[in-house]
Amino acid sequence: MVVHTDYLVFTTKKRQEFVRITDEVSSIVKTSGVQEGMVLVSAMHITAGVFVNDWEDGLIQDFQVWLEKLAPSGLDYAHHQTGEDNADAHLKRTIMGHQVMLPITGGKLDLGPWEQVFYAEFDGRRKKRVVVKVMGIGAGGSE
Amino acid sequence: MVVHTDYLVFTTKKRQEFVRITDEVSSIVKTSGVQEGMVLVSAMHITAGVFVNDWEDGLIQDFQVWLEKLAPSGLDYAHHQTGEDNADAHLKRTIMGHQVMLPITGGKLDLGPWEQVFYAEFDGRRKKRVVVKVMGIGAGGSE
Amino acid sequence: MVVHTDYLVFTTKKRQEFVRITDEVSSIVKTSGVQEGMVLVSAMHITAGVFVNDWEDGLIQDFQVWLEKLAPSGLDYAHHQTGEDNADAHLKRTIMGHQVMLPITGGKLDLGPWEQVFYAEFDGRRKKRVVVKVMGIGAGGSE
Repeated sequence: MVVHTDYLVFTTKKRQEFVRITDEVSSIVKTSGVQEGMVLVSAMHITAGVFVNDWEDGLIQDFQVWLEKLAPSGLDYAHHQTGEDNADAHLKRTIMGHQVMLPITGGKLDLGPWEQVFYAEFDGRRKKRVVVKVMGIGAGGSE
Repeated sequence: MVVHTDYLVFTTKKRQEFVRITDEVSSIVKTSGVQEGMVLVSAMHITAGVFVNDWEDGLIQDFQVWLEKLAPSGLDYAHHQTGEDNADAHLKRTIMGHQVMLPITGGKLDLGPWEQVFYAEFDGRRKKRVVVKVMGIGAGGSE
Repeated sequence: MVVHTDYLVFTTKKRQEFVRITDEVSSIVKTSGVQEGMVLVSAMHITAGVFVNDWEDGLIQDFQVWLEKLAPSGLDYAHHQTGEDNADAHLKRTIMGHQVMLPITGGKLDLGPWEQVFYAEFDGRRKKRVVVKVMGIGAGGSE
């Protein structure tokens, strides 16, 4: 059994930004040598998420408009009494999800035709991390 | 360590349909021989989801009414400029979740009394797949 | 490979209550002896969830106000024709998520600086369980 861990680091230019990370995750899976297993991709900060959906600019715009409607910024949130101003970012990331588990089959991410992995930043412009943890059977045989 | 992979295929008659798949997942777990471990059940299409909740027709209806309220169809979504008409399906599946990890204990799904696994289709009437990946310790001993 | 299973039990005093469980999960991980792997923390009841977010009372209040707005109690839900009165609890737990997978690195939960694990009860005052399933490589070497 192989367990391999890596981290992705993001410092987005905009407060809210969706970054496609399918290739980075694929590359970590390749490095791990895992042939059959799973990989966890999980945001380590609580105002960011990780999700799987379509790589289409219009849809990404739709997601952002929709999230602003469901979890508006600028409201008088109780969290802001601590001096923070990002309660909406905590709510938005909850809608999108904070992690995914991706199957690995034959040494590759076993994704459907349109599945792409995204990092969803809702309070950026500072350094944040995503943990990528691969677990499974390596190339050496049953282990 | 055992890793076993299978796929479920759906072609729903209606555009939106929730299909109970607990028995199909249980059957794949049994075939895998895994006694202690986990199984990932994940939609491979980005307008469908997988979730765990109650097997009660009224509640399923409540979910569908609620999702239409939170993520309405028929709006002028940016995604539709590509010729698509299913932006709402991408949003609805995001609310429901696109995958679950189910524990396996003593060779069986370790579910609570009312937990049932569902496939949630939001843009059906065509062939779609769900990946079911089982990982754990088989019956042969510590491996 | 090690697979270790435990259960947390909750009987909250209030119908809706968020309970921090990071320490309980950490303790189960320690008991398991897993050095490198993952732990699944999953609600076994369909009106409760498990999520990762900030341990800040104001934000917890914001979450609860927000969930009541997105999935109000007291509506005339179809589920209530069965005699139940908790349809909103099923919807609220869907927003928050019903499970998380946490990475284990060096024998400890590999969490970001502000990540805390919570049990989210939406229909409490009765006994409910959460399954905690640890899987990975133990201290004894490659296995």
